[in-house]
Order: sequence, then structure tokens, then C-alpha cells
Amino acid sequence: MDSDKSGEATKITIQEPKADTKGKGIIAGALAPVIVATKAARRSRKGWKKGAAIFDLVLRLAAIVAGFAATSLMGTTDQTLPFFTQFFQFHAQYTDLPTFLFFVIANATASGYLVLSLPFSIVCIIRSHAAGPRLLLIILDSAMMALTTSAASACAAIVYLAHTGDSSANWNPFCQQFSNFCQQVSSAVVASVIAATLLLSLVVLSAFSLRKMK
Amino acid sequence: MDSDKSGEATKITIQEPKADTKGKGIIAGALAPVIVATKAARRSRKGWKKGAAIFDLVLRLAAIVAGFAATSLMGTTDQTLPFFTQFFQFHAQYTDLPTFLFFVIANATASGYLVLSLPFSIVCIIRSHAAGPRLLLIILDSAMMALTTSAASACAAIVYLAHTGDSSANWNPFCQQFSNFCQQVSSAVVASVIAATLLLSLVVLSAFSLRKMK
Repeated sequence: MDSDKSGEATKITIQEPKADTKGKGIIAGALAPVIVATKAARRSRKGWKKGAAIFDLVLRLAAIVAGFAATSLMGTTDQTLPFFTQFFQFHAQYTDLPTFLFFVIANATASGYLVLSLPFSIVCIIRSHAAGPRLLLIILDSAMMALTTSAASACAAIVYLAHTGDSSANWNPFCQQFSNFCQQVSSAVVASVIAATLLLSLVVLSAFSLRKMK
Repeated sequence: MDSDKSGEATKITIQEPKADTKGKGIIAGALAPVIVATKAARRSRKGWKKGAAIFDLVLRLAAIVAGFAATSLMGTTDQTLPFFTQFFQFHAQYTDLPTFLFFVIANATASGYLVLSLPFSIVCIIRSHAAGPRLLLIILDSAMMALTTSAASACAAIVYLAHTGDSSANWNPFCQQFSNFCQQVSSAVVASVIAATLLLSLVVLSAFSLRKMK
């Protein structure tokens, strides 16, 4: 009798929210394998995200090296020719051309930003599901990519002119005299192009990571 | 009696999967407000995404206009000075300097890409939850932003030189003679900078949309 009563009691408790529970119970039962599958997918996605975050840090460190190399190569350009006239000594350094000065400032800014962005990149490794820092990084990375690209290409245009000159504008190629200066400037441009490419890769990687976010 | 029987029948059907359903029913009951809240959030998020997708299309159209303006302004630069010597006629056009030629090619490429990207942007409006086209757009937009920025800044560096010259390199400012040519080239640079800025906005907008994706 006791067991029967308890059976009756359970029957009542089940029947009370009948209209709601019946359908929901079936839904929950049907969802069970989906939940398990989602959990597995989330785990694999978490591994993917962690790997992407570590790769992001590695790319960022490489970009810092490239950025600082570009800045220091351009910043230390200084060549004095061994001959001089009575009024003029032939001397070339990066401050002679405003584009080269812009190049140094832009690359120093980008390198400084990249160093400051390292903690955010590390946060992305530890909390791989956090979309906030990743969103901040993708926006600032895009802006810094634009800055580095503009510095590199402006400088490349000038270096090209310095190497070949331009007969239409009657601009003579000064690299024939200042060959060491031009070589160092060209290396700085190459380093800056590498930094810009790495920043573009960072933007693409962040976009993929954001896509994988839940 | 009939109604009673049917009541009994329901009781049995509920009791059959009791062990499973009881707990699940409670979970489902507890989840009900969460599901409703999620649905509301999803609807508001869908509205946000649709708005962002429409804004993306508008920005894209503006960038197309700016890109084509830059290309056509630079492509039609042509100035002949009213005086000439026995051997030389003073004539300036964009093909005289390789940087200007690169500018035309880069801006034409970016404008062409932007026109081809319009269908994808429209797909993003119709299927605002589709992350695939958005991911494709953000990657290609970043690359095109880099291209446009490099063209604009390389050209800006040359135009600056053409305006002011450089005493260290002994480069004379040819804008003093070819003022119309320089004015048109400067306008083209401004249009290209606008196109690059719009592309940067597109990248940022796409990043936000990807962040809001489920």
C-alpha cells in the first residue's frame, strides 16, 4: 500500500506540469546526443583556438623583431663621403628626407604597439574563449598594418627614385654616390615590409579565431 | 469513465520514461526562461547583424566611388607646357613616374575587387548569420586595404617631393611648372586615402560582425 501510495504521489507530481513537461522531456531526451557532440566540438575548438593564440604570439614576436630592425636600420643611416668642397661636405642621414623620418616614427610606433599588445596576446592564450581582447587586437593590428604599410611603401618609392632617378623630373639618382646609405635604407624597407606582412597575417589569424568563437 | 480512462492512459505514457524524464523535465523547466531570453537576444543580434551588413554595403559603394575617382583622376593626368625648346617639349603624364603607374594599377585592382565583392556583401545582408562570406570579405578587404594604402602613401611621398623638392638630394620641385598636373595627382592621392580609410572601416565592421556571430 505504501509503495502504491508513493507511486500515486509521483504520478501526481508528474501530472502537475504535464502540459509543459511532456514536450520538454522529449526535447531534452533528443538533445542529449547533441549536447555530447557539442561538448566534443567545443573541446576540439578550444584546442584549435589555443594553438591559434600561441601562433599569434609567435607572429607578434617576429613582427616586433622586424619592426625594431627596420627602425634601427633606418635610424642609424649616416654616411659622409670622403671628399668635400670648400663650402659643402657630402653627408647623408635619414633626417634629410621627411619620408625617412616618417618611416622611423611609424615603425617605432608599430613596434611599441606590438610590445604593448603582448599581454593581450598572452591573455588570449590563457582565456582562449575571450573574444574581447581578440577584437581589440584585430582592430589595432589593422590600423598598425596600415601605418607600417604606408611607411614601407612611401620609403620604397623614394628609395626606388634614389636608385634609378627620374629623367622626366630631372631627379638624379644619389645612390651612385651614397651607396652604403642606400643599401641600409633598402634593408630597412625590406624589414618594414616583413613587419607589415606579419601584421596582415595576424589580422587574418584573428579573423579566423573570431570566426571559431562561440 | 471515458475521460478517466484517457487520464489513466496519459499517466502511463508519462510514467513509462519516468527515470529519464523526471530530471530532464526539471532541467527543461529551468531552461525555459533561458531559452526565451536566448531567443530574444538572438533576434536583437540578428537585427544588429542585418544593420551592420547594410552599412557594410553602403561603405563598400562609397569605397568603389573613391577608388574609381582615384584611378580616373590619376589616369587622366596629362599636361603639356605652352613653351618648348628645339629638342624637347615639356610634357607630364602619369606614366612618367613608375610610382604613379603603380598607383593606377593598385587602385584599379582595389576598385575591381570591391565591385566583385558586392554580391558577397548582399549575401551577408540576406543571410546575416552566414560567417563564411564575412570571413572571406574580411581577409580580402585587409589585403586590398594594404594595397590601396601602399599606393596612396607611395604616391603621397612622390607628390610631396614634387611640391617641395629636396635640397640634400638636389631634386627640384617640378610642381612649380606643372601645377595642374600636381593638383590632379594630389586629388587622386586624397581619393585613394579615402578609399583606404573606408576599407579599414570595412575590416573593423566585419570584425565586429564576426564577434557577434553565434
